[in-house]
Amino acid sequence: MSRIAYVNGRYLPLNRASVHIEDRGFQFADAVYEVIAARGGGLIDEDMHLKRLHRSLGELRIAAPMSDAALKLVMREVLRLNGIADGTLYLQVSRGSAPRDFPFPKSAKPSLVMVARRGRGPAAALIENGVGVITLPDIRWARPDIKSVALLPNALGKQRAKEAGAYEAWQIDRDGNVTEGTSSNAWIVTADGEVVTRRADNSILNGVTRLGLIGLLAREGLKLVERPFSVAEAKAAREAFLTSTTNFVLPVVSIDGTPVGNGYPGSIVRRLRQIYEEYIVAQEPAL
Amino acid sequence: MSRIAYVNGRYLPLNRASVHIEDRGFQFADAVYEVIAARGGGLIDEDMHLKRLHRSLGELRIAAPMSDAALKLVMREVLRLNGIADGTLYLQVSRGSAPRDFPFPKSAKPSLVMVARRGRGPAAALIENGVGVITLPDIRWARPDIKSVALLPNALGKQRAKEAGAYEAWQIDRDGNVTEGTSSNAWIVTADGEVVTRRADNSILNGVTRLGLIGLLAREGLKLVERPFSVAEAKAAREAFLTSTTNFVLPVVSIDGTPVGNGYPGSIVRRLRQIYEEYIVAQEPAL
Repeated sequence: MSRIAYVNGRYLPLNRASVHIEDRGFQFADAVYEVIAARGGGLIDEDMHLKRLHRSLGELRIAAPMSDAALKLVMREVLRLNGIADGTLYLQVSRGSAPRDFPFPKSAKPSLVMVARRGRGPAAALIENGVGVITLPDIRWARPDIKSVALLPNALGKQRAKEAGAYEAWQIDRDGNVTEGTSSNAWIVTADGEVVTRRADNSILNGVTRLGLIGLLAREGLKLVERPFSVAEAKAAREAFLTSTTNFVLPVVSIDGTPVGNGYPGSIVRRLRQIYEEYIVAQEPAL
Repeated sequence: MSRIAYVNGRYLPLNRASVHIEDRGFQFADAVYEVIAARGGGLIDEDMHLKRLHRSLGELRIAAPMSDAALKLVMREVLRLNGIADGTLYLQVSRGSAPRDFPFPKSAKPSLVMVARRGRGPAAALIENGVGVITLPDIRWARPDIKSVALLPNALGKQRAKEAGAYEAWQIDRDGNVTEGTSSNAWIVTADGEVVTRRADNSILNGVTRLGLIGLLAREGLKLVERPFSVAEAKAAREAFLTSTTNFVLPVVSIDGTPVGNGYPGSIVRRLRQIYEEYIVAQEPAL
């Protein structure tokens, strides 16, 4: 089946799906996006993603391209046309196309683009064995809480991780604390069993998986502490992990080559992976 | 005459000029650009722009889409097809199109896009009367010396300037010093007649107009000092101005509403505008 994308009102073969060269998403990174996991044809935490989309659009004063009800229909249609039950739905809204000029154009209409991809997240071996991360300076702009496509530093960071044989790069602020990964949130478990992740201020993107997992911690009897942690603290932590829409909960077993704990996924992260997977399954549409 | 753009080997009507929705310029701001002034059908400081283009590409490890000789031919053809003698040539190179993933794709081919526009820079009244700027925090990523399309903060800043009735926003680092405008370099003239602009380190884009003007100062008997200056120093300066490819040299007569000097363009900036215009005219092709 050839893949189908959605572009501004039309369902098109992916290879013919395009935007104008003066789209502000292409010329100014003046666009926001969401990536939503699909399972059993349903969209996981769809309303949380749409809520965050509206926050990003609002911060940039980009109008919503259509109602949420219409967005939901189009997202499902993209999944259906591609025959995808399990995978990811990528959605991007830009301020639209206009002759190139820095200020907001007076009459541009927002562009809306969607692409779906089949797949069920990271390979089993990564979940079983955990992954390594490197650390590097956080060189992003001051508003990574807005889910914009100004992702050049993230791409550069992920490339450096890949070249170092690592799965992700954790970005470090000027105080020496971890902000987040290039496309995931960063977590540690302390010796006391406290689950620590940075508070969602302007310095990180408030991950939907992060929020979902936070909601599950209390009933597991786990204490959440939202605070910054340093690279040194992370390396010395009992456990570490990352969360994202495509990875769910993934153990981090080394940081800059230093093993975390005994270098294997710990009991708490394995439990969290399991309960998060149950949380996902509970959202799948009934057959 | 309908406008013609260049996209990856083809000359197309502008309204049909597009890039793939998975172009990394659209999804990751993984692209660089140049804006070159055209005068009399010639391209001003063309080699300096191409040199900077190569620097930006090199910093991001994006391959050049074609040789400089070929680029020069295509740029001229875009001007010719649009019947443009005086205007600007916009050129953008992205890492190419590939299924969305943060690391560099293995086999993507860089995208090359060009658009030309007619026009001779700012209105005479702006040159005659000068412009106002506002100041705001520099919230960009740590590498604005790379001329990437990660321009969302620049667009937001310019929009704020426009809404404040100003022409440009000067961005301020955490030490209270001016880095540069959202699309121009920032300059002042001290009481002693020294011409001051920030050194071209990683914190600013090294403007081609900035470089061109620097080359002209000595023969005017003007002393150049490359150093940071604060907002307070700028407000109290004898003169202030900005430089860019589309504005050349433009007097700044107010900063955050505070008049610079007597609130009118000073003698040094007027002289610099004049000699820079002569520098441009000297590059125009002979008729």
